Amino acid sequence: MTVAIGVDLGGSNLRVAAFAGDDPRPVCAHREEVGLARAPEAIVERIAAAVDHVARGAGVTDGTSLPVGVGLAAMLRDRRGTVANSPHLRWRDVAFGELLAARLGPIRPVGGYNDVNAITWGEHVAGAGVGIDDLLAVYVGTGIGAGVIASGRLLDGARHCAGEIGHVKVAWGDGAAPCACGQRGCVEAYVGGSYVAARIIAALSAARAPRTRALELAGGVPGRVTPGHVDQAAADGDDWALALWTELAPLLAVALGNALAMLNPARLILGGGLLSRTPTLRELTLGALMLAAPVAATDGLSIVDSTLGDDAGLLGAAHLAASGQTFAP
Amino acid sequence: MTVAIGVDLGGSNLRVAAFAGDDPRPVCAHREEVGLARAPEAIVERIAAAVDHVARGAGVTDGTSLPVGVGLAAMLRDRRGTVANSPHLRWRDVAFGELLAARLGPIRPVGGYNDVNAITWGEHVAGAGVGIDDLLAVYVGTGIGAGVIASGRLLDGARHCAGEIGHVKVAWGDGAAPCACGQRGCVEAYVGGSYVAARIIAALSAARAPRTRALELAGGVPGRVTPGHVDQAAADGDDWALALWTELAPLLAVALGNALAMLNPARLILGGGLLSRTPTLRELTLGALMLAAPVAATDGLSIVDSTLGDDAGLLGAAHLAASGQTFAP
Repeated sequence: MTVAIGVDLGGSNLRVAAFAGDDPRPVCAHREEVGLARAPEAIVERIAAAVDHVARGAGVTDGTSLPVGVGLAAMLRDRRGTVANSPHLRWRDVAFGELLAARLGPIRPVGGYNDVNAITWGEHVAGAGVGIDDLLAVYVGTGIGAGVIASGRLLDGARHCAGEIGHVKVAWGDGAAPCACGQRGCVEAYVGGSYVAARIIAALSAARAPRTRALELAGGVPGRVTPGHVDQAAADGDDWALALWTELAPLLAVALGNALAMLNPARLILGGGLLSRTPTLRELTLGALMLAAPVAATDGLSIVDSTLGDDAGLLGAAHLAASGQTFAP
Repeated sequence: MTVAIGVDLGGSNLRVAAFAGDDPRPVCAHREEVGLARAPEAIVERIAAAVDHVARGAGVTDGTSLPVGVGLAAMLRDRRGTVANSPHLRWRDVAFGELLAARLGPIRPVGGYNDVNAITWGEHVAGAGVGIDDLLAVYVGTGIGAGVIASGRLLDGARHCAGEIGHVKVAWGDGAAPCACGQRGCVEAYVGGSYVAARIIAALSAARAPRTRALELAGGVPGRVTPGHVDQAAADGDDWALALWTELAPLLAVALGNALAMLNPARLILGGGLLSRTPTLRELTLGALMLAAPVAATDGLSIVDSTLGDDAGLLGAAHLAASGQTFAP
């Protein structure tokens, strides 16, 4: 039985799990809060301890050669696992990969991955992408991110920064919406969950707020109206909600369709917290996608929902490391 | 000395050449007009005869096992070389790959590629992409096409249709420009050479045509004004020419920048007949690209011109076949 260890290092939790073969259920799992001590060296020590712990829990007496893959809520700079920036971890220019590889020992395959890439690989191993060698997975949650698999390999780009679909431009010029990344017109600045939520609340809190069923559904309190309420109102035929969704759906559709034109995947996997709570927006987006994507790119394309949820990242990171897609020397 | 044979099947010419190793100069080359007899079986026979001819010309006595790669001016449907549509060849739904593989024999590696993919691979073997394993090559000529190499492999997609950058959308809705592909808002319908040329002539032939230096440069004949004249006029500060280029450059930049966001290549290769004759448009596009592409995607990116020209396709097809990137069984 082949065992590999996956690590998910997020802003709140450090999770570590041992997996056997393609089974998405971990043999042994560990979770601890990241807490306030976030010096890279300290985090690496804690990862090493947790790796030992789950290896033993999985019944492996000598775990020193087990592959370890780490999914990070971070923008990576290169294939050596250097973290360019992680607002979640409050890291900037951290040689995380080198520290980790040095600590975990030379025998072991060690890799670090953008968390969305790790989740995508997990879906490929045991979720919505099993058996599909060319796939695009797009997660529309607080932000928007994507993972790409081409010919059965993770497409991570020259510097580990591929799949940045949240920052493709769907508007330009001075009127384009400002994005937290510092640029304008990113699709995330229109359809990312935090932007959508803020826009809804701002619109309904304004002096001349529109009348909308979304507000009724939230008990009349503007600050409580969520994208889910707007989606329900749109489904009920509410003018304001429909107008908002009809504005946003083509923007997301263009970002998706343009990615399909470049990549020609066999499958598009959709996930993330926003789309799972907004079925009407999802449906409008898929309708607009047929106009946005070249016919050749949608012919034979299957579009499915992600199935594994957040744990996909642990599984995916473990399998990426085990498959040899590790740090470049 | 490893010899492989490249074939370029275009709308006008059938070219076949034998290459030795990485040398971009063919050991032996053959060219004939495609002519009017375009039945797939007849074309395959002529390819087979020309392959024998150049193999002998390259001094190979038994050429039956030499790899043969064919670059096609066609949209392919799958990895078996089925031609979905080729306006140039007047083919639709032709099982070209199967015919070719059956005729050229079972020993030989045989592959068929979109012509832009073959050109891109040629630049990778011996041109502007040597030593670069993650690259995007974009050709802005009559149309707009792209080839992608990721981790040293051609990214051709699930159905051989990846890299369709000409048909990414930069506008949507009823006001978006109609494209020959049947959709609206494709970047090619704005910045593709045939569209740019037609737009220029239409604008300058209209009843209230603008006054522009571009018209002077073309001897005062509206029907003779080319994108090159407009580019020269823009460089000279002509208002109309600058306004047109300032409208088009961000559209091309957004298409390029969004592709960089998804792919994170180490190098962007630019080629094609339009950009080579419009240095001002090229410069404006690259300026706009810095706003359109995520910072992480341009950090460390090199942008260079293609160096091999059209012959890159022959070399690339030969090497793709030799590298084992051939028809799926």
